[in-house]
Amino acid sequence: MPYNYPAPPMLSKNQLKQVQKLSLKKYRSETGLFVVEGKKGILEFVQAGYKAEVIYATHTFSPALSKQPLTLVSPEDLQRLSALKHPDEGVAIFHQPRRKGILQEGLILALDNIQDPGNLGTLIRLCDWFGIETLLCSEQTVDCYNPKVVQASMGSLSRVQVYYLPLAGFLVTCDLPVYVATLEGENLYTTTFPEDCVIVLGNEANGISPEVAALANGAITIPRFGKLQQAESLNVAMAGAIIVSQVKGKKIEKAID
Amino acid sequence: MPYNYPAPPMLSKNQLKQVQKLSLKKYRSETGLFVVEGKKGILEFVQAGYKAEVIYATHTFSPALSKQPLTLVSPEDLQRLSALKHPDEGVAIFHQPRRKGILQEGLILALDNIQDPGNLGTLIRLCDWFGIETLLCSEQTVDCYNPKVVQASMGSLSRVQVYYLPLAGFLVTCDLPVYVATLEGENLYTTTFPEDCVIVLGNEANGISPEVAALANGAITIPRFGKLQQAESLNVAMAGAIIVSQVKGKKIEKAID
Repeated sequence: MPYNYPAPPMLSKNQLKQVQKLSLKKYRSETGLFVVEGKKGILEFVQAGYKAEVIYATHTFSPALSKQPLTLVSPEDLQRLSALKHPDEGVAIFHQPRRKGILQEGLILALDNIQDPGNLGTLIRLCDWFGIETLLCSEQTVDCYNPKVVQASMGSLSRVQVYYLPLAGFLVTCDLPVYVATLEGENLYTTTFPEDCVIVLGNEANGISPEVAALANGAITIPRFGKLQQAESLNVAMAGAIIVSQVKGKKIEKAID
Repeated sequence: MPYNYPAPPMLSKNQLKQVQKLSLKKYRSETGLFVVEGKKGILEFVQAGYKAEVIYATHTFSPALSKQPLTLVSPEDLQRLSALKHPDEGVAIFHQPRRKGILQEGLILALDNIQDPGNLGTLIRLCDWFGIETLLCSEQTVDCYNPKVVQASMGSLSRVQVYYLPLAGFLVTCDLPVYVATLEGENLYTTTFPEDCVIVLGNEANGISPEVAALANGAITIPRFGKLQQAESLNVAMAGAIIVSQVKGKKIEKAID
């Protein structure tokens, strides 16, 4: 498609470099910045109150960005900025928010060393769907500002408070009961959960770390069904979905009983 | 690591080509064959009674494969056969099984045009975990013998009966009640499901197709929770996990009530 508007000035090397370097965790930590791609995602972070450092947008997207630090780019330059094959009208750099203290209330999900960006992104979407506002991550858990996590979270990252902290250290001082998901715990479907609690999901290969397991008030398991029972494991995001649904859904069932 | 055994004869071009061509659906359909990678997966398909056409295995794996059509390969040749960065001792070609008639019993999961191989693989794992033996796929659903699906299913494909069929056509003649997962259905948590039923999950972007929706006895929704309720959707595999868990888990809850 020909570009019929006056072409915006070309991007500088430094502008390109900054976006590219933000794919590295080291640089994200140093600067406290991260990248969001695509019109829809960018608008969700803006709406959630995230402070933009700069938003690179094509002329088709820029009208939606009043009062934002906007830099108009050509589609060609957007392609150079983007890590995606088909960039979607904008690439933005946002400031990572400073988190307030952790509200020890309601259902809190905690991740003990989740490594796969897709899993973390999907779990953030899960929290958003089920109104879980607080997601705790061990310090070894993949960075939620990793571009693949941001992408997989489909904008939900803008609405969930993600905290990175020494998980065992936090759980020692935490007032809420702690449940860990394991392969040898109590049957999920016959467990009654208190209104306020922490549920911990473990690493994809190794499960819950011993330090965290030692601090648990209970261990829960999604039982296997059927004749064969040879399925080795469920994906951690699927297990998270099943557990969260069981805890949250039961309250609805009870309310109508 | 040096290869201390007498080197097996090199693979022929035709052998290599056959494996590579099986990454294409067209060639899989023509031949009725498919590829499984890795020691653990191959053994699961053997154990489940799948007929191997040939199993290419290194000397470390070959002793486990008595009575199988084995071809010993060097680690270098295994790497040439494999689509993985780190192949795991073997690559096998199996025959796609002929399916018997569909057993209309218990919980049956049906997929209406699922496109992502990772989603299908994860849903096959879900079926395996929850003892769902029958998985119906519309003809437009991604092929379960696609190498990415086989990989994502983690061996569970060997234990779940996957049928490809004109889904709407089947549902017309099906005796079981049919529930479709949509964004505007009845609350999942207040729905009571019969012992035997079909639950249909829709396409990642477009949901349930109109032909299938028209045949449903009920539509169900996983309600959103929380203050904001801005989460746009759940990943289809996550939605599947939540629904299946709710249907299966409720039976356990009732049994102990």
